[in-house]
Amino acid sequence: MTSRADGRADDELRPIKFTRGFTSHPAGSVLVEFGNTRVMCTASVTEGVPSWRRGSGLGWLTAEYSMLPAATHERSKRESVRGKIGGRTHEISRLIGRSLRACIDLAALGENTIAIDCDVLQADGGTRTAAITGAYVALADAVTYLGAAGKLADPQPLSCIIAAVSVGVVDGRVRLDLPYDEDSRAEVDMNVVATDAGTLVEVQGTGEGATFARGTLDKMLDVACAGIENIVAAQREVLSQPYPGSLPGSGQ
Amino acid sequence: MTSRADGRADDELRPIKFTRGFTSHPAGSVLVEFGNTRVMCTASVTEGVPSWRRGSGLGWLTAEYSMLPAATHERSKRESVRGKIGGRTHEISRLIGRSLRACIDLAALGENTIAIDCDVLQADGGTRTAAITGAYVALADAVTYLGAAGKLADPQPLSCIIAAVSVGVVDGRVRLDLPYDEDSRAEVDMNVVATDAGTLVEVQGTGEGATFARGTLDKMLDVACAGIENIVAAQREVLSQPYPGSLPGSGQ
Amino acid sequence: MTSRADGRADDELRPIKFTRGFTSHPAGSVLVEFGNTRVMCTASVTEGVPSWRRGSGLGWLTAEYSMLPAATHERSKRESVRGKIGGRTHEISRLIGRSLRACIDLAALGENTIAIDCDVLQADGGTRTAAITGAYVALADAVTYLGAAGKLADPQPLSCIIAAVSVGVVDGRVRLDLPYDEDSRAEVDMNVVATDAGTLVEVQGTGEGATFARGTLDKMLDVACAGIENIVAAQREVLSQPYPGSLPGSGQ
Amino acid sequence: MTSRADGRADDELRPIKFTRGFTSHPAGSVLVEFGNTRVMCTASVTEGVPSWRRGSGLGWLTAEYSMLPAATHERSKRESVRGKIGGRTHEISRLIGRSLRACIDLAALGENTIAIDCDVLQADGGTRTAAITGAYVALADAVTYLGAAGKLADPQPLSCIIAAVSVGVVDGRVRLDLPYDEDSRAEVDMNVVATDAGTLVEVQGTGEGATFARGTLDKMLDVACAGIENIVAAQREVLSQPYPGSLPGSGQ
Amino acid sequence: MTSRADGRADDELRPIKFTRGFTSHPAGSVLVEFGNTRVMCTASVTEGVPSWRRGSGLGWLTAEYSMLPAATHERSKRESVRGKIGGRTHEISRLIGRSLRACIDLAALGENTIAIDCDVLQADGGTRTAAITGAYVALADAVTYLGAAGKLADPQPLSCIIAAVSVGVVDGRVRLDLPYDEDSRAEVDMNVVATDAGTLVEVQGTGEGATFARGTLDKMLDVACAGIENIVAAQREVLSQPYPGSLPGSGQ
Amino acid sequence: MTSRADGRADDELRPIKFTRGFTSHPAGSVLVEFGNTRVMCTASVTEGVPSWRRGSGLGWLTAEYSMLPAATHERSKRESVRGKIGGRTHEISRLIGRSLRACIDLAALGENTIAIDCDVLQADGGTRTAAITGAYVALADAVTYLGAAGKLADPQPLSCIIAAVSVGVVDGRVRLDLPYDEDSRAEVDMNVVATDAGTLVEVQGTGEGATFARGTLDKMLDVACAGIENIVAAQREVLSQPYPGSLPGSGQ
Repeated sequence: MTSRADGRADDELRPIKFTRGFTSHPAGSVLVEFGNTRVMCTASVTEGVPSWRRGSGLGWLTAEYSMLPAATHERSKRESVRGKIGGRTHEISRLIGRSLRACIDLAALGENTIAIDCDVLQADGGTRTAAITGAYVALADAVTYLGAAGKLADPQPLSCIIAAVSVGVVDGRVRLDLPYDEDSRAEVDMNVVATDAGTLVEVQGTGEGATFARGTLDKMLDVACAGIENIVAAQREVLSQPYPGSLPGSGQ
Repeated sequence: MTSRADGRADDELRPIKFTRGFTSHPAGSVLVEFGNTRVMCTASVTEGVPSWRRGSGLGWLTAEYSMLPAATHERSKRESVRGKIGGRTHEISRLIGRSLRACIDLAALGENTIAIDCDVLQADGGTRTAAITGAYVALADAVTYLGAAGKLADPQPLSCIIAAVSVGVVDGRVRLDLPYDEDSRAEVDMNVVATDAGTLVEVQGTGEGATFARGTLDKMLDVACAGIENIVAAQREVLSQPYPGSLPGSGQ
Repeated sequence: MTSRADGRADDELRPIKFTRGFTSHPAGSVLVEFGNTRVMCTASVTEGVPSWRRGSGLGWLTAEYSMLPAATHERSKRESVRGKIGGRTHEISRLIGRSLRACIDLAALGENTIAIDCDVLQADGGTRTAAITGAYVALADAVTYLGAAGKLADPQPLSCIIAAVSVGVVDGRVRLDLPYDEDSRAEVDMNVVATDAGTLVEVQGTGEGATFARGTLDKMLDVACAGIENIVAAQREVLSQPYPGSLPGSGQ
Repeated sequence: MTSRADGRADDELRPIKFTRGFTSHPAGSVLVEFGNTRVMCTASVTEGVPSWRRGSGLGWLTAEYSMLPAATHERSKRESVRGKIGGRTHEISRLIGRSLRACIDLAALGENTIAIDCDVLQADGGTRTAAITGAYVALADAVTYLGAAGKLADPQPLSCIIAAVSVGVVDGRVRLDLPYDEDSRAEVDMNVVATDAGTLVEVQGTGEGATFARGTLDKMLDVACAGIENIVAAQREVLSQPYPGSLPGSGQ
Repeated sequence: MTSRADGRADDELRPIKFTRGFTSHPAGSVLVEFGNTRVMCTASVTEGVPSWRRGSGLGWLTAEYSMLPAATHERSKRESVRGKIGGRTHEISRLIGRSLRACIDLAALGENTIAIDCDVLQADGGTRTAAITGAYVALADAVTYLGAAGKLADPQPLSCIIAAVSVGVVDGRVRLDLPYDEDSRAEVDMNVVATDAGTLVEVQGTGEGATFARGTLDKMLDVACAGIENIVAAQREVLSQPYPGSLPGSGQ
Repeated sequence: MTSRADGRADDELRPIKFTRGFTSHPAGSVLVEFGNTRVMCTASVTEGVPSWRRGSGLGWLTAEYSMLPAATHERSKRESVRGKIGGRTHEISRLIGRSLRACIDLAALGENTIAIDCDVLQADGGTRTAAITGAYVALADAVTYLGAAGKLADPQPLSCIIAAVSVGVVDGRVRLDLPYDEDSRAEVDMNVVATDAGTLVEVQGTGEGATFARGTLDKMLDVACAGIENIVAAQREVLSQPYPGSLPGSGQ
């Protein structure tokens, strides 16, 4: 039997850590770590909404994902210098935005936008799922901030917790939360986004140079959903601590 | 009970039609229609491979998807004029490429590239799944062409048939092959790419402003996989006809 | 004497065919064929006008031309992927727009824009002149649609028919409507846009690595103008059929 | 009868002036003036040819036209800042390149490129025709320079003189060499490029919101060709003076 | 002792020349020459201000610098064709804008913008300092024009004269106003922008592959400031002549 | 007398902190903090040099600076999404590159490139000077790594230490190391880059809407140079610790 390089069981997560208040300007700022993968997730509140949404009375949530050039094993070229966003970046940014819009009542924001930024400081597999997971915590902090500032029509606009994890088939075995060295040789690769209620938000599974049976898909979903329960517990735990900075009107 | 506007059963496909030899310059050229959705799919053979693959002795397959400006209900802006590819276009182009690379032995091509182009002439939902389905037929024709030209190291480099279909939850019911008016109000939207052997290549399911239960996912997969069997039958049928143009060395 | 590869007389057109209602979303949609050259021409009505024209009370007509990547003998690179429009595309788009603006009273539209899109599905010489010719038919259909919708200040805003053809000197002989294999070795190449009244809209003649005498220019114009008479007859013929879709308020 | 604002006869040119050696780095550098239109035209010799021409043994000539922001009545936006070349710029650059390639035997250059730059310092109509006319003089100087440097396979690679002029219908009258105030209200606008032998290189005539009769075209060509004879005389005159800088090997 | 190629003393300027009214459309248009460096500097008045400044009641001054392709010894690529502004161009444009904003009371303009354009026709070192110096003269002319047009809230919005010069260490000696052949081998390179009162606006000194002592910096500043006194005298002299064109309401 | 908001003396630095080994993929990775300004500085070694340097046998050092969107008080737009690098970013990237090239013997690298990336995680004034200071430490680590890997022709290619600091005039007083709230209202702003030997590398001083006397410049330089001595001491201190990761061949 092939065991994992880091000694984990196949259905075991890497250590997960959240540092709330990682930076101080954005309303929510969280450094999330899934093992050696480290992503800085921020939620900034800006006035106004995109033009296609103006006059609706509804807010908006948008997300941008980016990999710092030195985050990867080999330095990658900076997209601002290349002058365009690559397809992978586009795809992940859209996924993060869609995932977080599933938990928030945008009507509560009025015509304001929450901009989520997920910048990968160090990549070791699973950057998109770590980003979604950390961004939820940053979003929760931003919502707390907006509430304290008296800017929410509905005091509790978040209807659920959002978390995500990767799962794949490596060496013929279904494994949870793949680091880079497993991810790069996985036969099947899947990202699952789900809620604390166990319902699904997004499922993306891809055969990498191979196809996979329906039974494998079912097994991967089982493992991913169990993993997400643990991630949600960690999110709940860290969010049970007070807001990491000074809140408007808090006298701090 | 809410019935579908076009009278179909929930698990019924729209009429599917392939026109092989739709244009004559590319080695494979197919107009695929899923109801009113019409996509021109071509497979062109070009010498050489991308720089990161040079010297490997392996070929490559790349894909580009594009929506003609007047294909949609409201004219959409041309991406060449905007000067950049949008996120949705990027995402779909990558999906088509990944899906078709799952069926072809790229070593058989030598250092040559097959460029798949999927241009949507008319959009009525399911353009990406129609594109994958039609592109497979164009690819099969291009492979026939390459074989006749004596350019394949392996005479049969396609290991399976690739087909795709959309499925979703509309009005609380799981429905197959959504047209635009269903797609635009679907609660859950899923695209499934699979092979003639029933194995999966890619699964992408998204809650649109809602989350969905694991049971719903399972039901959607059942319906999609059954639909794909019928699509594969149509692909087999149309590919049982001879190559639509003149083949190298055929004396035609 | 050198005869033409397709057996035509020097002053003979290729077979011309118009398919009205080629797609159903735009107000006008026409597939035009000049022999093997096939261009999808659409006329879409959009609200508003460019900013420099706002407040004038006048409408606008704009045109965009594009070659699908697989339309040419060798696949050409997609301009949206290159991130910019090439000079040839720019030039032809501007020519189509100018040519069609010569026949329409833009005041009749109010501050609305007709966007002409000409996408070449298959290229075999003369794509720009086929595009202008087909776009006129699409424009006429869009005008019919706007009239039925009660959106025209003047019920008959088209003052003339616009048609175009190429002419050139090949093998020392003046020839009409050049296919690719003649065009690519023509000594002189000319595009003529004219009206059903025989007046000229645009004349562009270029010596390709050679100069040409005034007498040659005169001869080319004679041949082109005669050809345009025949094209106009074909346009009239196809437009004598009813509008190919359902018109607003038609009870269809 | 309406007379011209500057008192010229309808078929009279504006004063034309060439300043050779306007700048000293390029092999050819000419400031050309057609009345108040002033264009700096340079011909620079660079090693190598574009990739599609490599290995042919042939040289290349390319041209770029640009309007300085403050050259026009209202300052226009700089294209480098907009990040893309506009359609008009593209069109004129291509016209200048084609026109000058008609007079030069590119085989004589070996695999080297002559880059023509035409930068409009002040615009008052007819910038593209002034540019072609001035660029020919700069090209002739560059050829002299290359000859002195012993870099020409053929000592006389220019087969003819190239000149250009605009002509149009203004106030119902055919007029030569239109300044901006005539050009902006011309009913028909035409640019003619021809040789010292009286043969044509390029003819571009456009009805501006109007169409024009064949007889008008003929009249415009007569006037333009007569005007070009006078321009050629001025070119010959200025080129009868010695090369304006020091030539390689001249001991200067 | 190493003397300078052009025979100047180490602290001597090249001949400086201003041609006011170099072109006629912009409110200010000056050709400035520092030896063989020639820059066309214009100041154009446009209505409105950038969006971030709207509603402030204040005007704005912006500057763009550009090198014509043939201005340099080897032709350089046109930035509009490359599709982006290079770092050096950006840096110099920003320097010119900052420098000139130091002398003008923008409140006097109302919400209007003065656009400075500095286009280098011929480069021989010191193009940025020549540009600033010439642009000041163009700005002074534009202010005279605006005053005559009754568009200034304050009749004398310029509080000082701005001039600039380069200085460097070449062959171990501090030298003023470096031409290209000195600049390209300078050990230290410095640009100084100052006023007629002798105060500093901007100081930028750079060791080129070497570092420099504080004493060298002091010496360079001494030489530069003395040079600027002479440049200011030349600016005063040329501006003592009347405005070079016709002023609004002047009866000219 | 106006005192500083954070209680510092006018010539006092903010607390400076370096975290070496901040991330693990690049050869050098340092988080530098100047008070609340935090910049992640990495030095990555890549094979090859830019094309203009190929064949020289010399290495290259390049630098890119970027501000994360949420680093500033108001979220700023991501440059990769805008599709171009702004002028300020360009300017700072060039400054960092020039500054570090002053201390390294590029011949020792062979034809390899060190890519410096400075990404601002949190901005509170002085980001460019913090970036240079931190990047030097990352560069020193990368050089140690290269030496251990046996890839340096010269075992000690760094000739000096490079450090930088900002200084300015605020409330009429010369102050060192300005935080954002001082920087944004400074009358004069200066950045000084110097070596451990006290020689200067780069000096950039700018009057912000004001000019400044030579005496003020002298005073600012005095204060900056004294500050840099302290920064250099901090750099020496942190670099006296061992390399923070495992070195090639170290058996770690």
